[in-house]
Amino acid sequence: MGQVKIALIQVSAAKGPAANLKKNITKIEEAARKGARIICLEELFLTPYFPQTENAKNFRFAETIPGPTVQALSKVARENAAVLIVPIFEKRTRGIYHNSAAVIDADGRFLGAYRKMHIPDDPQFFEKFYFSPGDSGFKVFKTRYAKISVLICWDQWFPEAARSAALQGAEIIFYPTAIGHSLKEKPKVVAGQISAWEIIQRSHAVANGIFVAACNRTGKEGGLNFWGNSFVSDPFGKIIARARTKEQIVFAVCDFSEIEMTRQNWPFMRDRRVDAYQPVLERFIDE
Amino acid sequence: MGQVKIALIQVSAAKGPAANLKKNITKIEEAARKGARIICLEELFLTPYFPQTENAKNFRFAETIPGPTVQALSKVARENAAVLIVPIFEKRTRGIYHNSAAVIDADGRFLGAYRKMHIPDDPQFFEKFYFSPGDSGFKVFKTRYAKISVLICWDQWFPEAARSAALQGAEIIFYPTAIGHSLKEKPKVVAGQISAWEIIQRSHAVANGIFVAACNRTGKEGGLNFWGNSFVSDPFGKIIARARTKEQIVFAVCDFSEIEMTRQNWPFMRDRRVDAYQPVLERFIDE
Repeated sequence: MGQVKIALIQVSAAKGPAANLKKNITKIEEAARKGARIICLEELFLTPYFPQTENAKNFRFAETIPGPTVQALSKVARENAAVLIVPIFEKRTRGIYHNSAAVIDADGRFLGAYRKMHIPDDPQFFEKFYFSPGDSGFKVFKTRYAKISVLICWDQWFPEAARSAALQGAEIIFYPTAIGHSLKEKPKVVAGQISAWEIIQRSHAVANGIFVAACNRTGKEGGLNFWGNSFVSDPFGKIIARARTKEQIVFAVCDFSEIEMTRQNWPFMRDRRVDAYQPVLERFIDE
Repeated sequence: MGQVKIALIQVSAAKGPAANLKKNITKIEEAARKGARIICLEELFLTPYFPQTENAKNFRFAETIPGPTVQALSKVARENAAVLIVPIFEKRTRGIYHNSAAVIDADGRFLGAYRKMHIPDDPQFFEKFYFSPGDSGFKVFKTRYAKISVLICWDQWFPEAARSAALQGAEIIFYPTAIGHSLKEKPKVVAGQISAWEIIQRSHAVANGIFVAACNRTGKEGGLNFWGNSFVSDPFGKIIARARTKEQIVFAVCDFSEIEMTRQNWPFMRDRRVDAYQPVLERFIDE
């Protein structure tokens, strides 16, 4: 495939799952009408960001994959000839839940799901209470328009995750995300956080010569202010599309010839020392 | 150790090894007078960047480690109570040469050398002709003032190298460098290259919660224009000191309490999935 137009649906949360599903379907249809063929939703898009607190009642929001949301969006994918990346709070079995993302091909076929591998746990981001870490590794999905990988939010801080995706042939990594700051945080600190968040993801594009697309939530919820700032980076780390804090569909054309051109001119992939990276498999190397 | 002032000696090349040694010693003494306790020189600082061409006569510039340059700079280190990072074209034996960096402690003791692991080969950067890839892995040196790692130029594009250093306890990674652009290159392209170079190195600081210091050559040599732009990043990717293209000593104070504070607040090290990073050891994962 030569190129594809992608879209990131950056919205604030409506009240309940039904309202969020409806809101996001409207945006998907708009994005598809405007030419987007791969469309990514935010992390846990069906609900407000409930891991702000630890409350067992929130497990009621979980569903199976495939399940009702995949079913509903399969129809939307088919009708719009669009690949959809659909983050879902997944109930795998009684007592095992994941922070996942389903991938639906442009013909409506469910291609599989990625289960978030790196689970954060910080004040107001109590994800370890809700989500078991994924146990099926990093994945690539062959969609009609591109080979894509989906990683979720906290995964974005780990170069090994992006590398694993790229080595499986991913052309674009999508990062459905829900990152924001406490309302008590100072603006200067927040600016530094957004900068670090942007740098680490652009670096995955540079290191691997691939497109990177971060789709973040926006708006205020309880004690958190989500950043928005969804963006797409080209294979050399240049931002080719971006939002700020408003609700927005971010569009970008990913021309895959740039992957090859970048990797030919900056041949990092050629020179990796795969014989010498064993330290990366360690937690820490004690003296 | 609580903190240390470091210095990066960004200079253009003088004509021969003797002149470059003298020039750099003068700069080291100035940096030490101004309080720097760890001082880093540029990649292959004794010569112009000879890998612009493939010419076997250039092997005459190689020397052993330790050898005359380490001997001369051990004295300088001791007299100035400064740790020195000394890049050297190393002759290991007949026909095996490395692009290396010696580390000399503040008492003049030779602590060991790092041999560049990732060797580039691009037009005007024909390093594969001269240098065998290092075979002793990524290293940490316990100096009087800090645990440091030295990686060299092309190494900077590989997150695995920085990770391996951080997992061995490095507090600062130094990148002696000789990167520039062909005189034929368009300014817009060069700006993109400098941006990518900066992003990838700042990302190592972010991913690992450590200080990163890039010491680049400056000035025009033959068909190349070296960028300068030496900089120091704090553990959250913020640039705390930087040069542009002029000859300059870049100073920065690295406060190691920031490493712990950053890692406590953004605990990536806690959540690494060391059970799932095996793909990183592959060249490519064919379908």
